[in-house]
Amino acid sequence: MNKDKIMLAHGAGGKLSIELVREVFLPRFDNRILDALEDSAVFEADGGRLDFTTDAFVVKPLFFPGGDIGTLSVCGTVNDLCMMGAKPLYLSASFIIEEGLPIETLDRVVNSMKLAARDAGISIVAGDTKVVEKGAADNLFITTAGVGKIQDDVNLSSSSVAAGDAVIINGFIGDHEMAVLLARGEFDLQGEVKSDCAPLSGLVAAILSVSRKIKCMRDPTRGGLATVLNEIAGASRVGIIIEEDKIPVREEVRTACDLLGFDPLYLANEGKVVVFVDGDDAEKVLEVMKTHPLGKNSVIIGEVVQEPESRVLLKTSIKGHRVVGLLSGEQFPRIC
Amino acid sequence: MNKDKIMLAHGAGGKLSIELVREVFLPRFDNRILDALEDSAVFEADGGRLDFTTDAFVVKPLFFPGGDIGTLSVCGTVNDLCMMGAKPLYLSASFIIEEGLPIETLDRVVNSMKLAARDAGISIVAGDTKVVEKGAADNLFITTAGVGKIQDDVNLSSSSVAAGDAVIINGFIGDHEMAVLLARGEFDLQGEVKSDCAPLSGLVAAILSVSRKIKCMRDPTRGGLATVLNEIAGASRVGIIIEEDKIPVREEVRTACDLLGFDPLYLANEGKVVVFVDGDDAEKVLEVMKTHPLGKNSVIIGEVVQEPESRVLLKTSIKGHRVVGLLSGEQFPRIC
Repeated sequence: MNKDKIMLAHGAGGKLSIELVREVFLPRFDNRILDALEDSAVFEADGGRLDFTTDAFVVKPLFFPGGDIGTLSVCGTVNDLCMMGAKPLYLSASFIIEEGLPIETLDRVVNSMKLAARDAGISIVAGDTKVVEKGAADNLFITTAGVGKIQDDVNLSSSSVAAGDAVIINGFIGDHEMAVLLARGEFDLQGEVKSDCAPLSGLVAAILSVSRKIKCMRDPTRGGLATVLNEIAGASRVGIIIEEDKIPVREEVRTACDLLGFDPLYLANEGKVVVFVDGDDAEKVLEVMKTHPLGKNSVIIGEVVQEPESRVLLKTSIKGHRVVGLLSGEQFPRIC
Repeated sequence: MNKDKIMLAHGAGGKLSIELVREVFLPRFDNRILDALEDSAVFEADGGRLDFTTDAFVVKPLFFPGGDIGTLSVCGTVNDLCMMGAKPLYLSASFIIEEGLPIETLDRVVNSMKLAARDAGISIVAGDTKVVEKGAADNLFITTAGVGKIQDDVNLSSSSVAAGDAVIINGFIGDHEMAVLLARGEFDLQGEVKSDCAPLSGLVAAILSVSRKIKCMRDPTRGGLATVLNEIAGASRVGIIIEEDKIPVREEVRTACDLLGFDPLYLANEGKVVVFVDGDDAEKVLEVMKTHPLGKNSVIIGEVVQEPESRVLLKTSIKGHRVVGLLSGEQFPRIC
């Protein structure tokens, strides 16, 4: 590995991604808001708090079961806003298009964005289009940025998780990444896996309406559940113990993972939220999540403990505990 | 030309760009804010008005005299905010990086962003990094989005320009696009042209501090001065007459344009602003512009008239008037 060049692993959400952010971006863009390293930036405006975030989407193929790059580009940014407890308001969308892309393809993608934005309750208010020569981009890249409004009594942060908190997820993990991987047709596997891609605004609003003891929410996208749990354990200096048997993984996803040698804990999701809530409110939050269409399969998958600090442990049915670390290279072909 | 596929001209800022926006994006992302078709989106937040905008940067080469993709990605979005009279506050930056890019290159670009952000008075508070396979992108693309705050007594709009308004520009046109074209080395031309890339926050603040009769400001980027004037003439249903002799064009830029068969009126600028101001305040605004480092060469280049509606006329020294239209294809190799 050449450490002087950007490698795919720098974009995979694991150790190298974190290094790149710490060594190249943070020292230069030095400011309090960015240093918080949340999924989005919170700032004050005229007395209220707004949330601001961005994401670039480079998924390949553009279309996959359950969604496409358009759905993804809206849901990804909407969900980052939701994770700070913000109500999504406005979205910008920048398109980098490879010369020769059929306009009909662009049209389908834009229509998916329209539908996803409607579901999310967000308006697409600003945009830009650039066209590059054939070969200078891979069909279509979309970057969205979003602005949302945080309610006055909501204060979520990756550093406020504490021992005694429960860890809840709203359903099956790994569906998105496996759907995209199978859609590529590179593996000799047939699969019926659909991406879980969905805007979480409604589910998150429901969660926040029943409890004032939500500590933190994160969407386990790139790097999967394992990466998110490690980030939170590190930021809050706590241990997190999750139970293997409780983590929902579809049979098709598990089988494909076994065949391909992947671990579902590291697979990206696009419609999942990991909720950290005070143990006292865990059952109440679980209940309301289960009543929402995107939370039917919600389950408490673990708990927060004091030690080991900054570590994530997986309680397996047979072998006791094992440490779940960050990815150090790429586990998979990149999908985002 | 195949009308079913995206062509480079769809990104060139001329007729095809406008068609793409009107036919694909607007009908889908239907909302009042986007329909205004300004350079950025204005929305209300907690009683104040915020401005929100985005731009994708795909310049090639990454480095050119006077700037690089980093400078550009900050200035471009900052200037879009300034054009609505907003004070730039927060910026997000998304990087799409081709595998194999030297980290030192990224580092230089990020440092340029830092310096440009400092000059502009904006904080870079959110970001994202994606890495794509070698060949799937052209080195590095950056998309920025920005949020700014509009002062209560400022109301700029492309549709509020009226007969009697003066048209002022803050200096030489065409420097940016010519600098990038020459930096490519594709033409057998040596040139010392430097991009004018600069954040306009200070100049714009000075302009707004001396006059309440500013009608509209626009930065003549992609598509150049001719395109901006056409957009304003159309949006305000007025005629605009500009005088060829008054438009500042550097000798080197004019010579290169003559040799290459380009028209400087269509060349992109990255540190220019076209100000439409009530004729009564024109001299006052011109004065203050000239005292600013980015406005030393400011000049009144024309005036707004009632007819011909939605047209731009160039008063030449010899031939009288000619119509300056929109580009219908690409005049140049794409630079953005």
